[in-house]
Amino acid sequence: MSTIKTVGILGGGQLGRMLTHPAALLGIPLIILDSGEDTPAKQTLQPPPSLTHLDGPFTSESHIRELARLCDVLTVEIEHVNADVLEAVEREGLCEVQPSPKTIRLIQDKYTQKCHLANKGIPVAPFRPLPPNPSEEDVKRVVEELGVPVMLKARTLAYDGRGNSPLKSASSGDIHDSLDFLGDRPLYAEGWAPFVKEVAVMVVRNKEGEVRSYDAVETIHRDSILRVCIAPLRARGMLGVNQRARELAERAVSTLEGAGIFGVEMFLMEDGSLMINEIAPRPHNSGHHTIEACHTSQFENHLRAILSLPLGSTSLRVSSAAMINILGISTSLSDVHSISNSALPVPGASVHLYGKTASRPGRKMGHITITSQSDAELYSSLRTLLQSQPDLDEKYIDSISPSSEKGKSHPHPLVGIIMGSDSDLPVMLPATKILEKFEIPFELSITSAHRTPERMTKYAKEAASRGLRVIIAGAGGAAHLPGMVASETALPVIGVPVKASVLDGVDSLYSIVQMPRGIPVATVGINNSTNAAILAVRILSGSIPTLIQAMENYAQDLEKEVMGKVKLLDEQGWDKYSEKLKK
Amino acid sequence: MSTIKTVGILGGGQLGRMLTHPAALLGIPLIILDSGEDTPAKQTLQPPPSLTHLDGPFTSESHIRELARLCDVLTVEIEHVNADVLEAVEREGLCEVQPSPKTIRLIQDKYTQKCHLANKGIPVAPFRPLPPNPSEEDVKRVVEELGVPVMLKARTLAYDGRGNSPLKSASSGDIHDSLDFLGDRPLYAEGWAPFVKEVAVMVVRNKEGEVRSYDAVETIHRDSILRVCIAPLRARGMLGVNQRARELAERAVSTLEGAGIFGVEMFLMEDGSLMINEIAPRPHNSGHHTIEACHTSQFENHLRAILSLPLGSTSLRVSSAAMINILGISTSLSDVHSISNSALPVPGASVHLYGKTASRPGRKMGHITITSQSDAELYSSLRTLLQSQPDLDEKYIDSISPSSEKGKSHPHPLVGIIMGSDSDLPVMLPATKILEKFEIPFELSITSAHRTPERMTKYAKEAASRGLRVIIAGAGGAAHLPGMVASETALPVIGVPVKASVLDGVDSLYSIVQMPRGIPVATVGINNSTNAAILAVRILSGSIPTLIQAMENYAQDLEKEVMGKVKLLDEQGWDKYSEKLKK
Repeated sequence: MSTIKTVGILGGGQLGRMLTHPAALLGIPLIILDSGEDTPAKQTLQPPPSLTHLDGPFTSESHIRELARLCDVLTVEIEHVNADVLEAVEREGLCEVQPSPKTIRLIQDKYTQKCHLANKGIPVAPFRPLPPNPSEEDVKRVVEELGVPVMLKARTLAYDGRGNSPLKSASSGDIHDSLDFLGDRPLYAEGWAPFVKEVAVMVVRNKEGEVRSYDAVETIHRDSILRVCIAPLRARGMLGVNQRARELAERAVSTLEGAGIFGVEMFLMEDGSLMINEIAPRPHNSGHHTIEACHTSQFENHLRAILSLPLGSTSLRVSSAAMINILGISTSLSDVHSISNSALPVPGASVHLYGKTASRPGRKMGHITITSQSDAELYSSLRTLLQSQPDLDEKYIDSISPSSEKGKSHPHPLVGIIMGSDSDLPVMLPATKILEKFEIPFELSITSAHRTPERMTKYAKEAASRGLRVIIAGAGGAAHLPGMVASETALPVIGVPVKASVLDGVDSLYSIVQMPRGIPVATVGINNSTNAAILAVRILSGSIPTLIQAMENYAQDLEKEVMGKVKLLDEQGWDKYSEKLKK
Repeated sequence: MSTIKTVGILGGGQLGRMLTHPAALLGIPLIILDSGEDTPAKQTLQPPPSLTHLDGPFTSESHIRELARLCDVLTVEIEHVNADVLEAVEREGLCEVQPSPKTIRLIQDKYTQKCHLANKGIPVAPFRPLPPNPSEEDVKRVVEELGVPVMLKARTLAYDGRGNSPLKSASSGDIHDSLDFLGDRPLYAEGWAPFVKEVAVMVVRNKEGEVRSYDAVETIHRDSILRVCIAPLRARGMLGVNQRARELAERAVSTLEGAGIFGVEMFLMEDGSLMINEIAPRPHNSGHHTIEACHTSQFENHLRAILSLPLGSTSLRVSSAAMINILGISTSLSDVHSISNSALPVPGASVHLYGKTASRPGRKMGHITITSQSDAELYSSLRTLLQSQPDLDEKYIDSISPSSEKGKSHPHPLVGIIMGSDSDLPVMLPATKILEKFEIPFELSITSAHRTPERMTKYAKEAASRGLRVIIAGAGGAAHLPGMVASETALPVIGVPVKASVLDGVDSLYSIVQMPRGIPVATVGINNSTNAAILAVRILSGSIPTLIQAMENYAQDLEKEVMGKVKLLDEQGWDKYSEKLKK
């Protein structure tokens, strides 16, 4: 059919492979240009009978021209391509190229990419040009301007940390070591960005300039290679980071020409500000989780964008997700299989092997995605999977996913229990027993509406972005805590009226329950933190459906308990029974 | 590597195609036997360089033997295969066959399948054998035993309704029409099962006999062809149907030999009982949603089972999912693309085309999966997608997904508002305004703890299985409704104390909030149904994260409203301002 367009891809690695799946689903004919008959992408999609994949380097002009003649739209799975040929192909009308060769050229050179972003008012780390084959003096001059540490970076052909050399001092020795390491490639210098987290946002852009971003993710690198990616981004103590990161990424991609998916890598600074590190004009490792975790994967949205099909929803379809790269450990493929096999029993883990026929240390051989109903579940599975990676030690694993300790706050709580004073602790402790019984991760702390108002406000404001889903607040007397917390969060807040020294707790009850229209507190009985916790479990059952069954079992146990007493009362008679009650 | 086993598949249609994707992800070499170079499954996986797909009929003994020699485990994507050859292949040690050829043979003949199930005590519709080329008298005899209507069924090679002929009377004419229609195939007769719904459960079984079922789904057929499948099964007025269906399916599959995935089709009767219709020893159309909606798809679990890898989690990773088949309308492929294109803008819809090169009316050309955060969202998307299917009229679409009407209960509510008496309606109405504002589907009704205790109990017991996530109950005076409802459901119940004629509502408040340990009611202020609804929205935000932002916006609006009053008060002075308040 004439309306169906054939897509050609320069590069047949794992990104191309992951493009073949949505291509097959949508019935899009795809041809791949890469050297070898059996590259990862060629394994998973056969072109229609009239066409075949092309065997040759994706940098070769003649092969690119051959591909261009066979397809309607040409795209890339790698940005290190010959932008001149792509421009010529488009100019000569052989086929359309997406994203625009101009954009690919701009991004290929990290220095011109930085200049472009800075010119458009996008925040980036400070940077300076360096002349070809820079002298020690040239380097010293930029170090003076940018301070140390400074990164010397290759402008082109740099990825996974190759082509970056950090300079800790402006000593001749350090400078010459760096320059020797980087060779005679064109260089530039970048000031150090003392980030607290690395963040990435995938953005899809269509030809009309419509952009849609995915939720921001936290990216965790080791030796400059992405190891783990966590979605959505949680940043303790920083408000609206996810939203701000998405807006910044959309703004940056809006300055570029052409259609397709873009990976935008950013630094999150201590003050909560964001700056862009770099942009990839193609599917990106930090968006692999979108295959399972989002309505439309980055790969499908890339194809939709370059073919002018409607863009798909970028929403997460799960609460939390993570991606772990499977890197080659040695030249043996059995190491790779040992990592992927260890993921098979983990609920919610999906293995993606790339079909590479040779392994080497650090090579991306596959990845594992985890989808979960909660952060706690996610990090627990993540921990299991990290432990199967032989090059990671316990300390590093703890830094990503700390283990939880009974009797102390869980690192990824779903419920927060707070109280105005430690004197409320005896009343609130039964809530912890219930949450432990239902295996709900929680935290417990003290925050007072009157004595620590700022702490209370901060706690309430951050709660949702930290992954909490319910807050239980206990307070006595004037009992402002639950209502004040409810005023600063969108989460459901459960109030436990604590009986103080006078009025039998009725003062606390009225203070908590009689909230003004607009700000509700879910109030339970006086001193009844047990019911507060059970209510929290019932609330969580909306997002963790297995809790419905657990709660039904709990109700049956309550019934059995009473029926046991009925039997005993029948057997012993009430006089004997009530004697026992007195004990 | 010697530990990696090659899998051979008899049949290269869409089921084989969907097996190729997890095979690629897990690095499992796969060879397909089917006629043609370009069958759906051959398009999406290239065997390793040393192997190729086989071109020939999957019924041919020589081809099966050739395939068996090339692979370690042989499996099927269709049960209409030559079980004799598979048994020989296994006996001669050429390769392993899963599921067991014995099971395939048993299932191929629907009559022996039914006998087997009945012998094992599995409930099935009543059935009777028929001799070869049955006479009118033979048929009349079974009609006498089974009553009319009765189904005459071909024992073998029957699927998608082909080979079934309903007999409405025992008249000579009807009998001869049926027998003529069915031809000279071996037949049996089955009594009519007056089901209220058709249900299916996918079950995976490994060689050790471990079985794991997926959530039960509702299957909706039209002209005996599956059109729509909805997961998980919701059955109004029937308790625990999902669990019972899963247990029955697991029990049935446990009686069969060999490993693999099994599709178990059932009838749900009016009294809530279940009987098995038939079992397919392979991936099944009613499990296609598992690709997006479950942790491990039916296809991946089939491969895991036959290769003795750990079985994957069968849990849903989303709240609700649906699958709609894309059937050929004509011989034109553009009809197919027109249906699939209409799904592209629908959030949560995933298109799966099967790569078939020819269409014909009723042929399965692809399917669309929808994943959603709620039933309401699911049915709304489902409605959109059904409307793009040219052979379905509005009445049929309404029967699957009725449209909602403002001011009346939503067909797929997330919140149930109930009250003890219509006199509570004025107090409860503000709750409806809030839910409408946040676009939360809800229902509203009257049920009294004291005047309609059975109705109340039924409502509470069924609520969770109907997809409700929160109940708001308003009551005054003795105010038992919220607490009694909370005793019969695992859902969170919000209680609104309604101010009755005496005691200013304090009686209602105490009755609602002072629940015994174990059964909480989330109590809000007296007459404050606004807060009850806002609390419901906050509770729903755990499973519908977009509500967090909506609730934050709402809080900002409240703040703005007050700030507007501050300004007016400053401008007008308090005397003038308070005059206006009096009006």
